[in-house]
Amino acid sequence: MTDQQPRPTLRRREGRLSAKTIAELTSALAARFGDSLVTSQAVREQHGQTLTWLENAPPDAVVFAQSREDVIDAVRICAAHDAPIVPFGAGTSLEDHVNAIYGGVSLDCARMDRVLAVHAEDLDCVVEPGVIHKTLNEYLRDSGLFFPIDPGAEATIGGMAATRASGTNAVRYGTMKDNVISLGVVTADGACLRTASRAKKSSAGYDLTRLFVGSEGTLGIIVEATLRLAGLPEAIAGGRCSFPSVRAACDATVQTIQSGLPIARIELLDALQVKACNAYSKLDLPEAPMLFVEFHGSKASVAEQARLFGDIAGDHAGGSFVWATKPEERTRLWQARYDALWAATGLRPGARVFATDVCVPISRLADCVEETQRDIAEHDLVAPIVGHVGDGNFHVHPLVDMNDPAEIARAEGFSARLARRAIAMEGTCTGEHGVGRRKIPYVEEEHSPETVDLMRRVKTAFDPMNLFNPGKIFRE
Amino acid sequence: MTDQQPRPTLRRREGRLSAKTIAELTSALAARFGDSLVTSQAVREQHGQTLTWLENAPPDAVVFAQSREDVIDAVRICAAHDAPIVPFGAGTSLEDHVNAIYGGVSLDCARMDRVLAVHAEDLDCVVEPGVIHKTLNEYLRDSGLFFPIDPGAEATIGGMAATRASGTNAVRYGTMKDNVISLGVVTADGACLRTASRAKKSSAGYDLTRLFVGSEGTLGIIVEATLRLAGLPEAIAGGRCSFPSVRAACDATVQTIQSGLPIARIELLDALQVKACNAYSKLDLPEAPMLFVEFHGSKASVAEQARLFGDIAGDHAGGSFVWATKPEERTRLWQARYDALWAATGLRPGARVFATDVCVPISRLADCVEETQRDIAEHDLVAPIVGHVGDGNFHVHPLVDMNDPAEIARAEGFSARLARRAIAMEGTCTGEHGVGRRKIPYVEEEHSPETVDLMRRVKTAFDPMNLFNPGKIFRE
Repeated sequence: MTDQQPRPTLRRREGRLSAKTIAELTSALAARFGDSLVTSQAVREQHGQTLTWLENAPPDAVVFAQSREDVIDAVRICAAHDAPIVPFGAGTSLEDHVNAIYGGVSLDCARMDRVLAVHAEDLDCVVEPGVIHKTLNEYLRDSGLFFPIDPGAEATIGGMAATRASGTNAVRYGTMKDNVISLGVVTADGACLRTASRAKKSSAGYDLTRLFVGSEGTLGIIVEATLRLAGLPEAIAGGRCSFPSVRAACDATVQTIQSGLPIARIELLDALQVKACNAYSKLDLPEAPMLFVEFHGSKASVAEQARLFGDIAGDHAGGSFVWATKPEERTRLWQARYDALWAATGLRPGARVFATDVCVPISRLADCVEETQRDIAEHDLVAPIVGHVGDGNFHVHPLVDMNDPAEIARAEGFSARLARRAIAMEGTCTGEHGVGRRKIPYVEEEHSPETVDLMRRVKTAFDPMNLFNPGKIFRE
Repeated sequence: MTDQQPRPTLRRREGRLSAKTIAELTSALAARFGDSLVTSQAVREQHGQTLTWLENAPPDAVVFAQSREDVIDAVRICAAHDAPIVPFGAGTSLEDHVNAIYGGVSLDCARMDRVLAVHAEDLDCVVEPGVIHKTLNEYLRDSGLFFPIDPGAEATIGGMAATRASGTNAVRYGTMKDNVISLGVVTADGACLRTASRAKKSSAGYDLTRLFVGSEGTLGIIVEATLRLAGLPEAIAGGRCSFPSVRAACDATVQTIQSGLPIARIELLDALQVKACNAYSKLDLPEAPMLFVEFHGSKASVAEQARLFGDIAGDHAGGSFVWATKPEERTRLWQARYDALWAATGLRPGARVFATDVCVPISRLADCVEETQRDIAEHDLVAPIVGHVGDGNFHVHPLVDMNDPAEIARAEGFSARLARRAIAMEGTCTGEHGVGRRKIPYVEEEHSPETVDLMRRVKTAFDPMNLFNPGKIFRE
């Protein structure tokens, strides 16, 4: 529907930096950062991608920032040498966000790990980007508040904001998009600014906060985050229930969500995943699709939610619904879900998990999971499924022998079909992991070239030299 | 903290179009749109600002679009004549968003009013921009779902998205930011694209949806919106309670929010506003600060919420808490709140309400309201207060004789002090009305010039000719 206009120009980088540039860059950085500049191969490789099967692309140098002034100076020095800057948190990204594919500097913000303020009355806090979400929750323990986003990994707040992370309790509490009030960012010209006030809502211009959330380090460096907190619920109940089919479990999920039941978590494990959990955790759960649920609220509300969910599960041929409120019993009930990823690995020792992350409108969830299971069977993969099904988001984890290129190719083919299946169902190729480089082709299929062009326009406007994490999210 | 770099260049328009350009433009539009092009003075003025005391700036022509193809062609014709395009919905904006300050075309999308799809299982629907939120809720009545954002006025979905509207039940359901899943937009080059898939969450690149929400027509024309719906609660309870002071009412609000009680609405009326309501609706409410509340949930949950709120109100010296669940009783209880704006006008017949719209962190709410009341008294204004206090958002409504320039100036002085007071308390000069032109100076104070420069960069990248609603949100 568009005119034949030229694509917005995003500066394309031509390979890694020259030895001369690297020498000048590291010399300038050393003068400013001393011991906080590290160029050893081990540390550089540790700052390339380590959690996926993708090739490690180490930066030329790592700067350990301890303050926003460090970030500003690192950005200015890199800009002066036209060197890429890749922000780094805990390195738990499941796409290749932290790979320095054109070299340059990995800007490690993990040491910027102070909680700067807790405003208990306002249900918010201000933190540096290197704070780990679990550490924040330990810090908040006596305040009656908690930060609800839990992506599973011990990720930093900066990284979680940059990838628009979510996780198991997003169905009730939302994603990072919903829980970041404001960000402090350092832009390509070395300016340090805040995206918004601390007001809970605002109509004061463009939503720059949401623009930086999910920008994967391509628009600026996050140096501060104001986060929304939730009140610790008075009571928590956990439960689980088996279903005769994935479809029955999905239908129960749809009805739960549609009934307005404010469920905090609702997680699906398919039969293979349950089998893996039985083996790993020495359980004897029925090897059928299973929903794990959690309810937050007052004691009375939690009891009522559990009862209502039990009724819904019963309507969909769910087996006996087991639930518990005491912490140790809840943990025992949920153990299989907690251990799911480790248990999956146990299905095929020596193999590695290949992460996938589609999300579809919940009405298509059963279709998408069933088609995917047929695909898994047809292609002879070992691939358990876990899903944040209240949001329509699920992960298939093919177990792949990373020494066998044919097997890797088979897994990649599966991953591509999965992404396209989700897109065809009006869903997304990534619900919470982000794009990195590997999903670029699917993002363009998902959004249309015109939409991706608007993203390129934003990138070019904010970072004309293409300094920040070049080569990620879209083609250059 | 920034380098002395030049501000990003946003093309500045030099006054209204010439008579020659207007003639050529209207001729081209007439050839394409026939009777859907209107140039009568009455219709043009009706499409300038009518709801504020700001001077009416009519467009040179009005195009009534009936389809996205109409919008695309209108944009292309305007672009070819370098004519501004100001999107128009119901004209209920309280800033001067729809004023065509440089002339050009008002693109009226009110006739694009079809509900295109309701996906009940997914809790979403797809609508054209001219759908009124109340009409949508009538359409949805039998589905068990509703669209929760209610800004008070009979606004269109397109306009509500463009101003990031919210209203009384944002405290539970969020604002337009939280309830728009995806938008269809026509960009300055005449492309029509969608900002996101229909998935409930996604990490697939920049959040263009949130970038268009709140962009006040400056980045593109909204031609479609996919909206998140909520399940109609099984039970609703309404209530009200008087407090000895604004501070006590605010403290009760803070405790309610902090306790995690999922209150659907919590509205403050100050003593003057209650007095106005008594006079207007022939009530005999105690003329003291009052909270109006509403609870949504199951019958048991609503009863529990009401009990918990009653306890909290009691802790803060709240008078007897009256509540009701039957629709007609709830309506009677809430009548004073519904009538607040009309009642305010009755305080000073012939005067007009001057809209204000600050939002502060809730911990500063009592301070902000109290300081504002002192300001009102010192400057001898008649200015009742209503607030969406669960979000820290409140409106002061000075009643101004619009024939008295000195009085208008006094109200403007008050409005400026109010905006700056909120900003000094880490809040915003606009919680839900938007910026338009009048609040531009405060937006720059609120955000810092560097932050506003990033907004300008986005604008320039998306709309280099400055076609879309020029002169709004920031200085050119």
